[in-house]
Amino acid sequence: MLTATRTVRIEWGDCDPAGIVFFPRYFEFFDRCTAGIFEAVGYRKSELLKTFDIAGIPLVEARANFLSPSKFGEDVVIHTTIPEWKRSSFKVHHRLMKGDELAVEGFETRVWAGHDPQRPGGIRARPIPQELFERFRHA
Amino acid sequence: MLTATRTVRIEWGDCDPAGIVFFPRYFEFFDRCTAGIFEAVGYRKSELLKTFDIAGIPLVEARANFLSPSKFGEDVVIHTTIPEWKRSSFKVHHRLMKGDELAVEGFETRVWAGHDPQRPGGIRARPIPQELFERFRHA
Amino acid sequence: MLTATRTVRIEWGDCDPAGIVFFPRYFEFFDRCTAGIFEAVGYRKSELLKTFDIAGIPLVEARANFLSPSKFGEDVVIHTTIPEWKRSSFKVHHRLMKGDELAVEGFETRVWAGHDPQRPGGIRARPIPQELFERFRHA
Amino acid sequence: MLTATRTVRIEWGDCDPAGIVFFPRYFEFFDRCTAGIFEAVGYRKSELLKTFDIAGIPLVEARANFLSPSKFGEDVVIHTTIPEWKRSSFKVHHRLMKGDELAVEGFETRVWAGHDPQRPGGIRARPIPQELFERFRHA
Repeated sequence: MLTATRTVRIEWGDCDPAGIVFFPRYFEFFDRCTAGIFEAVGYRKSELLKTFDIAGIPLVEARANFLSPSKFGEDVVIHTTIPEWKRSSFKVHHRLMKGDELAVEGFETRVWAGHDPQRPGGIRARPIPQELFERFRHA
Repeated sequence: MLTATRTVRIEWGDCDPAGIVFFPRYFEFFDRCTAGIFEAVGYRKSELLKTFDIAGIPLVEARANFLSPSKFGEDVVIHTTIPEWKRSSFKVHHRLMKGDELAVEGFETRVWAGHDPQRPGGIRARPIPQELFERFRHA
Repeated sequence: MLTATRTVRIEWGDCDPAGIVFFPRYFEFFDRCTAGIFEAVGYRKSELLKTFDIAGIPLVEARANFLSPSKFGEDVVIHTTIPEWKRSSFKVHHRLMKGDELAVEGFETRVWAGHDPQRPGGIRARPIPQELFERFRHA
Repeated sequence: MLTATRTVRIEWGDCDPAGIVFFPRYFEFFDRCTAGIFEAVGYRKSELLKTFDIAGIPLVEARANFLSPSKFGEDVVIHTTIPEWKRSSFKVHHRLMKGDELAVEGFETRVWAGHDPQRPGGIRARPIPQELFERFRHA
């Protein structure tokens, strides 16, 4: 199974008055990592939306366990996998490491969302293209 | 059980290219609402930290279910409760409503975190003060 | 001249490890206040875009002077005016007050930007509608 | 004069409903680049604060000219210099390039801010250490 890896510097603006990452920022990091794993199989997110004519890959669930705080100035490494594909949704798993220590674990469930022809501006779940599965299978 | 309620206008800067709230922003909204429920019993978060000499109320878990997207310009209402208190941690529950519709549901588990005398800059869980329970009980 | 006023609570997530507002957040506050002054004359920003069929009111210049830091937990008041209108652009002035003290002063120059019929997804400056001037003149 | 260069991918969460960077994000990019130029001479910002026992390098002025919007998925390059040093303040200049085109130009004036011994939690300007000048001169 493909693992995409990304190093993130914890910046001044990511941190709160306690000097540690303000937790919504972790979800923002994870969002970038999800984009990153698609890029790892050849689709930048911006191209992904165009190529498959979708509105996005919005979340139906997000979750994180915060095991150890990350401080301003640290470099952390995030490992991202897609452990499960369903017909029109998929799960994403992120492990944020400080050295060998698992510091934050993140989980997303996302939907493959097309434009809804019945409602302008609306979206609806659509089957994930076979072509995409193939890319991940052979990665 | 006390419910704190807050109206949030979905601002331009909260939204992504799909025109809906970028999901980490929901966690930021929820963080404010957690501060809000403490304020509702008489403690602004800034005073809470000073009064009880704690470093913060960091999260050990955060989770959200996204049932319906919120668009730029909408007003949503968030209802916040603390359904469970433990010795040194507590759970927070947020329901973000668009009119009568539950749009996002959020869950936090937070720790009452004091400064760790053994490690400068470190934190450790401490018992939640009785005085605080009393405030919530009588609210 | 119309002045729109907004109170902003400085939240935990607005602040950096020095315990004061992370400066890009001020620009985000100001962006909301610019939306607020249009709302004060009867146009929510979301409706403004639809009513006048524009893509947005993007900035060509933003500037701020930081005179005094704002700390977590403080309530500040922002006064917003539109001191100058041109054919297809306008200036916005924000004064962020801590009590009687001017803490931050912000300046924006924005363009009235329509969709560019020649370039899909592109934008171009358009004349500001007379109807909008009238609203501000009579406010 | 030392120029520090950084490539920034425009992420989904950086962009607004118009599909372009929400302008306060540029100031956040620039804040990182200012940290980056200090790192280029051997001081990570987190170490800079400790080494010289300062509270931070807060801004007294920030300004940006937005010449061309940056879209989701683009890679931009930011060139950062420190064109002027004074006794206890300095100016930073950022040029954000899309290929050969200057898209955003940013200007910061920052203060070298120590802890104020007279006011706990307060800060005051202090002379910039000679050692730091030397590093930049020889870079």
